[in-house]
Amino acid sequence: MERLKQRILQDGKYLGRGILKVDAFLNHQVDPELMMACGEVLARRLSHTRPTKVLTAEISGIAPALAAAYHLGVYLIFARKHRPITLPEDSFHVRVPSPTKGGEVELWLSPEWIGPQDRVLIVDDFLATGQTIKALAQLVHMAGGRVVGVGALIEKVFQKGRENLRHLNVPIESLVRIARFEEDGAIIFAE
Amino acid sequence: MERLKQRILQDGKYLGRGILKVDAFLNHQVDPELMMACGEVLARRLSHTRPTKVLTAEISGIAPALAAAYHLGVYLIFARKHRPITLPEDSFHVRVPSPTKGGEVELWLSPEWIGPQDRVLIVDDFLATGQTIKALAQLVHMAGGRVVGVGALIEKVFQKGRENLRHLNVPIESLVRIARFEEDGAIIFAE
Repeated sequence: MERLKQRILQDGKYLGRGILKVDAFLNHQVDPELMMACGEVLARRLSHTRPTKVLTAEISGIAPALAAAYHLGVYLIFARKHRPITLPEDSFHVRVPSPTKGGEVELWLSPEWIGPQDRVLIVDDFLATGQTIKALAQLVHMAGGRVVGVGALIEKVFQKGRENLRHLNVPIESLVRIARFEEDGAIIFAE
Repeated sequence: MERLKQRILQDGKYLGRGILKVDAFLNHQVDPELMMACGEVLARRLSHTRPTKVLTAEISGIAPALAAAYHLGVYLIFARKHRPITLPEDSFHVRVPSPTKGGEVELWLSPEWIGPQDRVLIVDDFLATGQTIKALAQLVHMAGGRVVGVGALIEKVFQKGRENLRHLNVPIESLVRIARFEEDGAIIFAE
């Protein structure tokens, strides 16, 4: 998606250690119009998977996943990192290694909103190592649902998320693919 | 807003201690079409405040605030509860008492996205005691910006948020106002 690529070139900053700062339009400040446009493209590319729900992880996945769900005409669920008192005690949870924070984070899903009848599209801001998306897929399986596709705005190809998610055997779409970062901070796109 | 009121009556559950569970369409599962409709109404009612930015707090504020920002044609910023490595060291932060979790949570704002030129509309899912919104207003002031309005989807009138925010001297809009909960779980709306 050329528009997102240009925005990354204009406002993205490479911080080293594989970390791309996109706080100008995605992770702290959010450009709603850009999010809706990205969600529309993801929805178009993945509508053939006929999802009944979109699932993401709080926090930064919420904006793009909401946009995709809106354009697909289905509900969004965001997995919680802490179980709030509103989640039932029999909620599902998984642990995910957090490379940027160190240690692990938890992800929680209530059994109320995903069940055996559901075809779930997982949407997140980044596809990096694929650990978060893999954990979200585990939650879907624990709830008896089926993962039918994966969508992300920005794929960091060198972190091998696509390979790590191959076992899901579903279409994986990303809007922008970054092949690598150069030492001077230059962003090299794939293809 | 009649549509949101009906949805609360249909899917909201009173859990006691002033806590309304709206996980079916707002706090865990999200109805994107309802969020966009709510954002549109908030935008219409508050556009006269001429905001240049919308500010919310992660996590549950993001969906309705994104919708409001989209309809206002401005950027959204979500204050972070933990400072990620992408936020500069001179970021502003405040502490907010957390009645449901006990203790305090922190809210972080980078100085990069709000400055003296900004007119900031604060949007959140709930207006309860007003503590979170008050903390967001403090962040705006620390950044040199001006708070021009407050918008929320659901106001719990009995928790006095409106009184606690009176010092801001700005328009406060909520789409649904709950006067109180009855012991049998009935939701009594104001007006």
